[in-house]
Amino acid sequence: MASNRQMVLMEQARQAATFDQIKLTHIIYDGYGDGFLCSEYHLLIYGREENVSSRRAAFQRVESALELTDDMKLPHMYSGLDRNALYLEGVRRGRAIIDDMILYKHNQFENLTERYQLTNSTPFGLSFVMFRRTIDLQATLEQKQLWLPLIDQMKVNGCYLQTELGHGSHVRGIETTATFDPDTDEFVIHSPTLTATKYWPGGLGLSCSHAVVAAKLRIRDKDRGMHWFVVQIRSLDDFAPVSGIELGDVGMKMAYNGTCNGYARFNHVQVPRSSLLAAHAQVLPDGSYIRPVDNNQQFSKQVYSTMLQVRQVIIQWAAFGLAQPLTVAARYSVVREQGVPMFSDPRAPEVAIVAYKSQHYRLLTLISQAYAILFACKEFDDKFSDFQREKSQGNLDRLPFIHALSTALKAWTTNIAAAGAEEARKMCGGQGYVALSGLPEMVATACVTATFEGENYVMWQQLMRYLFKQIDVMQAGGRVDSDMVECLHEFKQYLRSDAECSHLKLITADQLFAPSTLRSILQNHHHRLLASAYSAYTRKSQVSSAAEAWNSCLMRLLPAAHAYAEYIVLQSMQRRVEMIQQSEPSLFPVLSRLSELFALMTITGSVSSFHVIPFAEDGVLTSDQFDAMRIRIDKIVSELLPDLIALTDAWDFTDASLNSALGCRDGNVYERLMSWTRQLPVNTQDLAKHAWGIPGGIQDFLKRERQMPKAML
Amino acid sequence: MASNRQMVLMEQARQAATFDQIKLTHIIYDGYGDGFLCSEYHLLIYGREENVSSRRAAFQRVESALELTDDMKLPHMYSGLDRNALYLEGVRRGRAIIDDMILYKHNQFENLTERYQLTNSTPFGLSFVMFRRTIDLQATLEQKQLWLPLIDQMKVNGCYLQTELGHGSHVRGIETTATFDPDTDEFVIHSPTLTATKYWPGGLGLSCSHAVVAAKLRIRDKDRGMHWFVVQIRSLDDFAPVSGIELGDVGMKMAYNGTCNGYARFNHVQVPRSSLLAAHAQVLPDGSYIRPVDNNQQFSKQVYSTMLQVRQVIIQWAAFGLAQPLTVAARYSVVREQGVPMFSDPRAPEVAIVAYKSQHYRLLTLISQAYAILFACKEFDDKFSDFQREKSQGNLDRLPFIHALSTALKAWTTNIAAAGAEEARKMCGGQGYVALSGLPEMVATACVTATFEGENYVMWQQLMRYLFKQIDVMQAGGRVDSDMVECLHEFKQYLRSDAECSHLKLITADQLFAPSTLRSILQNHHHRLLASAYSAYTRKSQVSSAAEAWNSCLMRLLPAAHAYAEYIVLQSMQRRVEMIQQSEPSLFPVLSRLSELFALMTITGSVSSFHVIPFAEDGVLTSDQFDAMRIRIDKIVSELLPDLIALTDAWDFTDASLNSALGCRDGNVYERLMSWTRQLPVNTQDLAKHAWGIPGGIQDFLKRERQMPKAML
Repeated sequence: MASNRQMVLMEQARQAATFDQIKLTHIIYDGYGDGFLCSEYHLLIYGREENVSSRRAAFQRVESALELTDDMKLPHMYSGLDRNALYLEGVRRGRAIIDDMILYKHNQFENLTERYQLTNSTPFGLSFVMFRRTIDLQATLEQKQLWLPLIDQMKVNGCYLQTELGHGSHVRGIETTATFDPDTDEFVIHSPTLTATKYWPGGLGLSCSHAVVAAKLRIRDKDRGMHWFVVQIRSLDDFAPVSGIELGDVGMKMAYNGTCNGYARFNHVQVPRSSLLAAHAQVLPDGSYIRPVDNNQQFSKQVYSTMLQVRQVIIQWAAFGLAQPLTVAARYSVVREQGVPMFSDPRAPEVAIVAYKSQHYRLLTLISQAYAILFACKEFDDKFSDFQREKSQGNLDRLPFIHALSTALKAWTTNIAAAGAEEARKMCGGQGYVALSGLPEMVATACVTATFEGENYVMWQQLMRYLFKQIDVMQAGGRVDSDMVECLHEFKQYLRSDAECSHLKLITADQLFAPSTLRSILQNHHHRLLASAYSAYTRKSQVSSAAEAWNSCLMRLLPAAHAYAEYIVLQSMQRRVEMIQQSEPSLFPVLSRLSELFALMTITGSVSSFHVIPFAEDGVLTSDQFDAMRIRIDKIVSELLPDLIALTDAWDFTDASLNSALGCRDGNVYERLMSWTRQLPVNTQDLAKHAWGIPGGIQDFLKRERQMPKAML
Repeated sequence: MASNRQMVLMEQARQAATFDQIKLTHIIYDGYGDGFLCSEYHLLIYGREENVSSRRAAFQRVESALELTDDMKLPHMYSGLDRNALYLEGVRRGRAIIDDMILYKHNQFENLTERYQLTNSTPFGLSFVMFRRTIDLQATLEQKQLWLPLIDQMKVNGCYLQTELGHGSHVRGIETTATFDPDTDEFVIHSPTLTATKYWPGGLGLSCSHAVVAAKLRIRDKDRGMHWFVVQIRSLDDFAPVSGIELGDVGMKMAYNGTCNGYARFNHVQVPRSSLLAAHAQVLPDGSYIRPVDNNQQFSKQVYSTMLQVRQVIIQWAAFGLAQPLTVAARYSVVREQGVPMFSDPRAPEVAIVAYKSQHYRLLTLISQAYAILFACKEFDDKFSDFQREKSQGNLDRLPFIHALSTALKAWTTNIAAAGAEEARKMCGGQGYVALSGLPEMVATACVTATFEGENYVMWQQLMRYLFKQIDVMQAGGRVDSDMVECLHEFKQYLRSDAECSHLKLITADQLFAPSTLRSILQNHHHRLLASAYSAYTRKSQVSSAAEAWNSCLMRLLPAAHAYAEYIVLQSMQRRVEMIQQSEPSLFPVLSRLSELFALMTITGSVSSFHVIPFAEDGVLTSDQFDAMRIRIDKIVSELLPDLIALTDAWDFTDASLNSALGCRDGNVYERLMSWTRQLPVNTQDLAKHAWGIPGGIQDFLKRERQMPKAML
C-alpha cells in the first residue's frame, strides 16, 4: 500500500518487530475504561480483547462526529484559532465524548479524553471529578438527593472553588468569607480583599452554572474555619453571572485552552442557609454551630482518599502523556533521512535519523520509562483497589501508605513525563517546534502536571514525612506498616554511623545484570539516602525547631524521596514483567529488556534533576561496573531497535488523537505536512498582501528613504 | 512609595542587597551594543555608564512608540491575538527598533530585540544577519555594488533559503535545481520533488521581497554542486509572489510568531545569469563553468567564520534568555506568600515562597548559571575579536579552535538556558502556566535554540572531532593548538590504561573549595572522559569503519564534550571574577560566591541530562567530600539570599521587555494580574454568553433530557 519512500520506510520499520504488537496493546489497556454499562448501576467487565475493540469503536465514532477522520485535512485545532475559538472547540469536544459515553453506555473517556488529556481539560470534566465528589462527601442526605440527580443528568455544570489569587493549597490562608445572617437565614459570601479572588479553578470562568465554594464560616464575628458552600454562579436562563458575582477567564495558558480556568469575586452574595454542605457541621437558624467531633478524623481521611482518586488518574495519564510524543518522535525518526554519520563516505546516502546512536538511545530509554510508569501505575491501581475494598468495610489502616505511595508516584511520573515529552520534541529538530507537529501541545499539556493537584515539591515532602514516621516507629521498636516491610528490610543498619554500605560490596560480573541485583542497587541507594536524610534532620532538630530543621535539610530530603520512587517503580515493573511471563510469554523478551534498560539508565544517571544524587556516590559499584553497564545499555538499545515502532504502535493511538503531521501511522510525513501547511488560514487568506499593503505595513517601510549606517551592518 | 503588602515585601528584598546593583549592570552590558554611530562608518565606543544610559533611553523611546509604558494596561501581545495578528504585531515591533536605531544612530537592537529575543524573531532581522552576509561573501564586486546599497537602505528585505522539507544542514542533500539555459542566458530555478520545497527559512513566507537560494547548479546535465542565487520572490508593487513561486507561512510555532517561517516552491522560475553569486564560480554565456580552485579552502573558512558570528549572538542571548525568567521567578518568590514549612506552628503566618530551601536553592544555583554563561560569553567575545583581527590580516590559524569553542558554548549554553527557563516557570507554580505570567513565551523562546543554527547533538560531535584531532597531534609528537595548551596540560597520562586518576587523589579539607581545586576537579573530569572516549573510539575503529566506530561510541563522546564545556565555562567565570576583583572590588564577594556555587552545583550533579556522567565516578572525591560540598552549597545560597533581587535587577530588564504580570519591578503582582485579566477580550466581550447561547453551546447541552449511568460516576 505504501506509495512513497517515507511510507515504505515506515512499513519496513513496522515489519521488523519481534513480537505481536496487539498482545501488548491488550496489556496496556487492561483495566482502563474496560466496562460496558449493562444497567444503570452495573459495569460488565470486558475481556482484554473486547476492551480494545470497544475503545477503538468509541474513538471511531467520536472522531467521526468531530470530523477528524480525513488525515490530509488540516485539523480544526490548527485553523488559526484564537482564545475564543479554542474554547468553543473545547465545548464541542467535551460534548462529543460525554454524548458518546451516554449513548453507547461505556466509560472509555471517564478519565482521559479522546486526545488522551485529562478530562478536566474539557469544560465539563470537573463537574464529575470535583464538584460531584465534594457534594457526595460533604452534603447531608437531603442535600445529596437534591444535587446529585441534577449533576448526573447534567442539568447543572459545576466547578470547585478553593484556590484564591493569593492562596493555594494552604487551606488556612483562604480569605473568602461566608457570614451567617440570622435575620434573613442566609449566608453572605464575600471576597473581602483582592487576594481573596478565586483564581484558577477549572471551568469557572465561562462554563459552569454552579460551584462548591471554600469559604471561612463566620457566625456572630466568630471564625469557624473553612467550610464548603454550594452556590449558583450563573443563570440557567440568560447565562449571565448571578448578581453580585464577577466571573472571568484567566486567558491563554500553555495548553488546556479547551476549558476555561477562571476567576470569581463575590460581593456580598446572599445564599440560603441550605447552601452550607452540612454533613459534618451544621448551622441552626439561631446561629448555633453544631459539629460532631467524633467523626472528624474519619472524615478527613475520607477527603484524603477522594484526592487519591484524582492522583491515580494523573499517574495513569503520565504513561500515556509520555507515550504520545514518543510515538510521534519514533515514527518521524524512521522516515526522516538526514545527513550521514561523521567520517562516512562522502557519497553515502543520507540515513534515517533513528540510525544515529544518540537518537535511538534516547528514544528507547524514554520508551522504557513510559512502560515503567505504566506498570507502576497498574501496581498502584491494584493496591488502591485493595484499599478501597477495605475502606468500604470501614478499615482505613492502609491510608497513610497509599497516600505516601501516591505522592511518590505523582511527583516522579509527572516529572519524567514532562521532561521526556520535551526530549521527544527536541528529537524532531526544527519540525518539533511547529504547532502542526502536535508536539508543542503535548509538551505544554505535560508541563502542568508537575505543579497542579499537589505541587511536586510538596508531594516529595509528604512522602518523606511518612518515611520518617516509619523509621521513628522502627527505632521505637514498633512495627512498620505491612506494605513497608519488604521495602525497609535491612534498612536499620544504614542508620549506624559506622555502617559499611551493606551486602552489595561484592557484585560479580555474572550477577551484575540480574533483575534482583539491579533492584538491590536501587534499594541500597534508597536506603543510604533515606538514612542520611534522617540523620541530618535528627541532628538538626536537636538544635533548632522541627520546622527549621526540616526546611534546612530539604535538599537532602528530596534525593531520598526520589530514590524511593525509583525503587518502587523498578520493583513494580519487574513484578509486572514476571506476571506477563506467565500470561503472555512471547512478550517476555522485549519487556524484560525494557525493564533492564530502565534500571540501567537509572543507575548510570542518564536522567537527573535538582533532586538526584548519583549512584556512584554509594560506593558499591566500581568505575568498571559503570562502564560495563553503559556497554550493556548500548547492546540492549540495539536489540530493541527492531521493536521501536511496535513498542509505540502498541499504545494504539489514533492519528486524530496525536493530531500531528509528523506522527501519523502511515509515515506519510512530508505530503501531510505540506497539505496541512497549505490549508492554514494565514496562507489561504493571503496575509502577506495585508501585511504589505496596510498603513504601517512592510511596503511603506521599505519605500522610506533612509540609509542604514554602515557600522551597523 | 510601596502601597500594598507585595510592594513592601519587594522593597525590603531589594534593600537587603550587599552590593551596589548598578555596578554589576555596567559589567553585564559592557561590550554589548555599546556604541554611538558618530559617522556612517565609525562607532564611537561608550564608557560603561554611558552605555547603560544610552540603552535605557533607547528602550524608553521604543516602548513609548509601541505604547507599552502603562504597566497596568493589558499588553497588546495578550489581547487575544491569532496567528495573523501576532505576525502584524511582529511587523510593528520590528519596524520600531530599526527606526530607532537609524534615527538615534545606535546599535542597541543589533543582536537582541526590545524583548531580548534574537533579532531573527522580527520580519526584518534576517535581511542583515543572513541575506546580506551571504551576498557579501559570495558576490562579485559588481553584484555587491548592486545589492548591498539596496539592503542597507532597506529597499529590499531578504531571506536565506537553504533548508528544505526533506533536508536540513546536510548540504549534499539539497534537491532544488538551477539549470542553465544558454539559449535564454538564464537559470531555471525548480523544486523537482515535494521534499525539495524550501521549508522553515525565517521571513520567507510573508515578509521578504528577495532571497538567496541554495540550489544545485546544472549545466548541460552536469551537476556542479550547490551554489547561491539571488532571486526576487515577491513583487515590490503589488506584493504578489513572483510568477512560478508558491509562498506560504508554516503557521504557529511555540514562539517566534512575530516573524514568519515560511515555505517556497519554484516551478521553472527563470532568473538572469547574473543571479548566480559569482565570487567563487562563474558561468559564461556559452555554459562554461569556471571555478578558481586555489582559494576554495580559504573561502570555506570565510563561510565558517560568518556562521560563528551568528553563534556568538546565540551564546550572548542564552545569558539574557535565562536571566529573564529567573528575574520573574525571583520577584514573584519574594512577594508570594504561601503555606508554612512542615512542622511549623499551626498559627504561624504564611511565608514568602523564597524562604523554602528548595526555592532559593533552585533560584540561586540557576542564577549562578546565568552569570556563568555571561562570563563565558565575554571570554569568547574577546577570543573572537582577537581572531577577527588576525583574520583581517589574512591569518585564519585559530579558526579550528574558535569554531570548536563556539560549538561547545552554543550547545551547552542553550541547553542550560532552556532547562533553566522551564525550571523558573515551574517555580511560579500554577501562575507560571498562564500566558500573562510571560513565562510560557520565555520558555518557548528558549526551547528553539537547542535545535536551530547547529543542532546541539551535531555541535557536540564537531567539538569531539576537534578534540580527537588535537590528541592525534599530541600522540604523533606534534604541537597542539596554542589555545589548547593549558586545557590539555597533563592530559597525556590519562591515555595510559594503568593511569591512576591523577594528582587529585589527596584533596585536603582546607583546599576543597579553593577556586583552583574546583577547576582541577572539572579539568580532571574532562580529561578522564575525553581519554576514555578516545580509547573507546580508537579500539572500535580498529575493527570497524571510522563512521561505524564513531556512531557506536556516540554516547561516550557526548559526556566528554559536555565536560569540556563545563570546564571552559568555569575557567572563564573564574577569570572574569578575578578581573572584576581588580576593577570593582566591591562586587568580588558576591561574584566569587556565584562562581563557587556554579562549580559546586556542577560537581555534585545538580543538573544533568542524557550526556552527563557523574563526577563521583572519577574516584577522586570521597563520599564525605561530596557531603561537605552539599553543606557548603547550602551555606552559600543562604549567604546569597539577601542579594537575590539585586542579582536579577542587575540585568536591568524593563517591565515591558519582561511582559509579565508576575515579574514587574514594583512587586505589585496581584493588582496587575487582576487588572490584566479583566481586560482580556474573552472577558470584555462576554464569551460566556456566546458559548452558552449558540446552537451546540452549553445551554442546549445542559437542557437535554438524559441520565448518566451511575456506574460512571
